[in-house]
Parts: sequence; C-alpha cells; structure tokens
Amino acid sequence: MPVGTRATVRGLDPADLIEVGANIVLSNTYHLWVRPGADVIAELGGLHAFMGWSGPILTDSGGYQVFSLREHTKVTEEGVRFRSPEDGAYRTLTPEVAVRVQETLGVDVAMAFDECLEHPATHERAAESLERTKRWLIRCIEAREHPERTALFGILQGGLYEDLRAEHAAWLTELDLDGYAIGGLSVGEEREQLLRFAAFSAARLPEDRVRYLMGVGHPVDLADAIMAGVDLFDCVLPTRAGRHGLAYTSEGRRNLKNGRYRTDGHPIDPACPCGTCRRFSRGYVSHLVRADEILGKRLLTHHNLAYYLRLLARFREAILAGDADRCTSLREEAAIASRAAVD
Amino acid sequence: MPVGTRATVRGLDPADLIEVGANIVLSNTYHLWVRPGADVIAELGGLHAFMGWSGPILTDSGGYQVFSLREHTKVTEEGVRFRSPEDGAYRTLTPEVAVRVQETLGVDVAMAFDECLEHPATHERAAESLERTKRWLIRCIEAREHPERTALFGILQGGLYEDLRAEHAAWLTELDLDGYAIGGLSVGEEREQLLRFAAFSAARLPEDRVRYLMGVGHPVDLADAIMAGVDLFDCVLPTRAGRHGLAYTSEGRRNLKNGRYRTDGHPIDPACPCGTCRRFSRGYVSHLVRADEILGKRLLTHHNLAYYLRLLARFREAILAGDADRCTSLREEAAIASRAAVD
Repeated sequence: MPVGTRATVRGLDPADLIEVGANIVLSNTYHLWVRPGADVIAELGGLHAFMGWSGPILTDSGGYQVFSLREHTKVTEEGVRFRSPEDGAYRTLTPEVAVRVQETLGVDVAMAFDECLEHPATHERAAESLERTKRWLIRCIEAREHPERTALFGILQGGLYEDLRAEHAAWLTELDLDGYAIGGLSVGEEREQLLRFAAFSAARLPEDRVRYLMGVGHPVDLADAIMAGVDLFDCVLPTRAGRHGLAYTSEGRRNLKNGRYRTDGHPIDPACPCGTCRRFSRGYVSHLVRADEILGKRLLTHHNLAYYLRLLARFREAILAGDADRCTSLREEAAIASRAAVD
Repeated sequence: MPVGTRATVRGLDPADLIEVGANIVLSNTYHLWVRPGADVIAELGGLHAFMGWSGPILTDSGGYQVFSLREHTKVTEEGVRFRSPEDGAYRTLTPEVAVRVQETLGVDVAMAFDECLEHPATHERAAESLERTKRWLIRCIEAREHPERTALFGILQGGLYEDLRAEHAAWLTELDLDGYAIGGLSVGEEREQLLRFAAFSAARLPEDRVRYLMGVGHPVDLADAIMAGVDLFDCVLPTRAGRHGLAYTSEGRRNLKNGRYRTDGHPIDPACPCGTCRRFSRGYVSHLVRADEILGKRLLTHHNLAYYLRLLARFREAILAGDADRCTSLREEAAIASRAAVD
C-alpha cells in the first residue's frame, strides 16, 4: 500500500496511482482527524470521494502517531490524551474514537487501536501491554457501527517474545476478524529479529485472512516476509526515499543527487517500464533533484512505487503459479535493489 | 507561455502541459547556464529532449536575472559580471554568451541580451541605456551560429518615454528580426502606464511578426494587451499563485487557504473543464494547500494554466473570426477573474 498520510500520496494524483499499479492505499486516522477533520471529509462524501480514489483504502488507527508524540501524551486505560502539534488542541484517542473516525471516513479497512510497546521492553511490560491491547481490541469491536462497510483488522503484538505472540495469535484467531496485522516490529530491533518475528507471527495467523506486516521495509525485507506468508505491506520508503532523491532499481539503489548522474542519458532503471523511466534520463532527474524541483520528487516517487508494486505483482504471479524457484529468484532481485548500485 | 525556469514548469510534467493546452514554454538562460550547464543539456540531447517537451521553447536571455543580482553585478560595455548565488562562481554574461548558451540549449527562440533599465529612469539615462541595448543587439545578431534552428527576438526598450520607444521600434523593424518583445515594462510603473506603453509599443512593431509582452500579468492585463495587438506572453502568476494557494476562476480569484472552502464540495471553477476541476473539490484542494502538500501546488498550477491558456485560446478564436464583440466580452470575463471572488 502506498502511504497517503494526509489523503494524498505526496506528489501523485489518483491517475498516477493507477498507473504505478496501486490497488489499495493507506491513509492515516490521526492526521485526517486533526486536519481537516473526519466530519469535514464525511461532508465531502467520505475519504474516497475526497481524494478521488475509488479503490480500497486502509487507515492505520493513529496509535503509532499519538504514541510518537511522547512528551504530550498521557496513556490511561481509557486511551491516549495528547496535544496535536498541528493546532495545539488537546484530544483523547480511544478505541471507540479510532473506530468512529475510521467509519466516518468511510474507509474499507479500519485498524484496531492498540498500545504501542516501547523497545526494548521486559517480558513483564510486554505482557501487561498486550493485555491492554486485547481489552482495547474488544472495545474496538464493540464500537463498530458499520461492519458491513468498514472491515476491522486486529494487530498482533507481544513484543519480541514468542510465547506472548503465540498466545495473542491464538486469541486473535478465535475472534474471527476480517484480517490481521503484525505489529510492534520495525521499531529498532535487528533485521534478523524483525524477519524472525514476522515469520513466527505470520505462521500463527489464519492463512485464509490477509496477513499484513506494518511498516516494512526495503525490497528484500518485503521479499523475505512474503516468503514467510505475509500478504500486505505499507511502507514510506518508496515515497520518502523518492522525495529525497533515491531510486530503487533492478541494478541497485541510486542516489540521483550524486554528480555522476549529471550527464547520464540512461533511464533511472533501464529495466523499468514506468512513465518516469520511459520519458526521462538520470541526468534530467538528477538536475531536478539538485534544484529541489517538485517534479523531481514526483518522478522518483512515481518510479519507486512502480518498482515496488511491480515486484509484488511478480511475486503474486509466482505464488499463484506455485513457482518456488521464481520466488527465490525474485528475492535475489529484491536483494540487489536494496543495495547501493555500482555505477 | 507557461514559465519553466529550471527546465520544468514547477510540479507539472510534459503530459500535463499538453493537457492544459500549452503549445510553447519559456525557460531561462541564466538558470540553466548556471545549473546544470548548457553543455550538460547539449550532451543530453538539448533542452527539448532533456525536459521531454517536443513543442517550441523560448528562453529569456538571462539579462533580467543577472541585473536582479544587483550587489553582485558590474555592468560594462562588455556585459554583466556577477556572482551566482547557486555556486558562488563569478561569470560574465555578454550578448555573445547569451546567444551561444541559447543555441547550445537548442531552443526555438532565443531572446536578445539587453540592458535592464532601472525604474524610474531619467530621459537621459533611458536614452543612454537604449544605445547600449542597440549595440548589444547587433552583437547578438553577429554571434548567431545556428539561425536556421534558433530564431532571435529583439526587445523593444526605451523606458517610459514615447520618443525613445518610437525611435527604437523603427530601428528594430529595419533589422527584420524573427520576432519582437516589448521589454522594460511591469517594472513598478502604474498599471495605466504599463498598458499605455504596451499598446504604444505594439502599434509600432510589425504586424506580421510575433509581438511578445514580457512578464505580464493578470488575466485582464493580458486581455487589454491582446486588444492592443500583443500576441505572446510569459507570466509567473498562474504558476506562482497556484503554488501559494490562489486560483483564477471565471467567478474571480479564490484563495484556497481560506477556511470558508474547508467543506466546499464544488470544483474550484464550476465553468472549468480542466482535470483539477473535473476531479477534485475546493474542500480537498483547500486541505492540500493548508497541509502544504505537493499535490495542492500541482493541482492549482494545473488549473491556473488551464484557465489562462483557455482564455487565450478563446481570444485567438474571436480574433480569427474577426469578432470584436466577443473580444470585449472576453475582456470582461478576464476582469472578473482578476478580482477576488465573492463567495
């Protein structure tokens, strides 16, 4: 899922999203709640109409964002009280509010509101937090008013403790939710641990539901997670890296700010069929990036999303064909794309 | 001509430019000379290939820009020595350099390098400057190496003095150049003076050549100038205003930052057929503008250029049909678009 935090994937319009092959986008409950407000969006026909995107939309619950505002938060059993940097107003995000806001936005998939566990955390602290996350999920379920329109995904937590994750996965599966996310990873742990816990978690969630790994990652991380059973991702890397001049390519990651690309007439990725690579040279994109021109951000965001989404589309084909060798070779391609290119 | 200073109309790609109805774009000799350099662009196939725009390109000579760097310039008969803020390097822009850079870029129309007269200026100072501008034009003509590929437009100067403008117009016409620009206006004089001198100048330039009024203006200014015989314009207003949240519409200028548009479901301009107005509401664009999202700048730039270019296309039709009444009513529409909308 391309990340469209504020009801826009930065720099792209909905036609661009279709062109790069997006079939679902992620937006953010916290940001839209604060500005322009869920009621404003509802009045304008809901989030799909608002942003001109008729495909599915998933929103994260806002938990990650309010827990990131550490100095302003007060966490109680009720929820999280915080002060928004955007307008200085105090608000309290609770499971009920998170569900209500997401249903008001009219999104296709709402994420449960859970407690974000700090990293590192003791087993005792992780277990205690997990119990709260479970109570909050029950409150999310009870708060739903439009289950026929907005699905609800639970989020598997349990920190970096296998016993807690296994227990939570069993408990979540019993609830028979629309889908499941793997949360609490990509928070500062080693890559090896991230992948081990992603695989451990995916294996304990039902195969016939979406298994969504939150906030991951480089192409090779996605590849490893796919091979461990993950179906869905969101990640700011292709868009954020694009805005900072980085391109993921079949030959490795390129930093277009680098002077070596000034007179380079090749496309960013010779193997890429995207609109950026079909039309523009590394030299031109490098010029735009160094001049801090909007079009540079847009073209690289476009290319990076096209790269990621094409990689995932090829994985889907290989999986549907039951072709494990093809998956292995795609994983190798993703590993190359995740390293710096040697130009 | 949409303004694409650094080989990009900020936020738009060439397909967008075609969609808004652009059939020529302006770029900037000074900026491209400093970064990425004319030789770099030549190595990448020339400015058309570089920016992916196959339509005509006109470049201004860079004179206006280097004269704007006042504290860094030293003006001599040779040219203007200046220090570029971009890289701190000292360079000297002369008539020969301006022509060489523009021919190296491979543009369709090069502008002559002239002296930018300060405002206000005495008759003596204006006359003295005009003589230098004439000598520099002769040097521009003599410096041309690719007249078959790159046309050269002269620039009518003479400050706010009718005798100087009349004399210069006669002198320029004798040179039988490819086209003529009206320069030295929109420099701080009253609107009434701007229009009077634009009309005075246009009337004294040959009807069978392009008459191009530089750096003007609001829709109503364009309308008045068209009715005085001007054929071509460049102006940063539609693009710059768009980046700052302003929209030109058939109902007046709208500031989308204004809170009154938060829940407004109408298109920016109900009478506009552009992609922004067909797809998005004032409420959404207002949200993007207030959140400082790239897409807000892009959508408003798109709309404003579509508005300007459609106005000019309708003027062309009316002129070709010899319909003076239609021109008058278009002038009224342009006057409305130039005032703040009453919402």
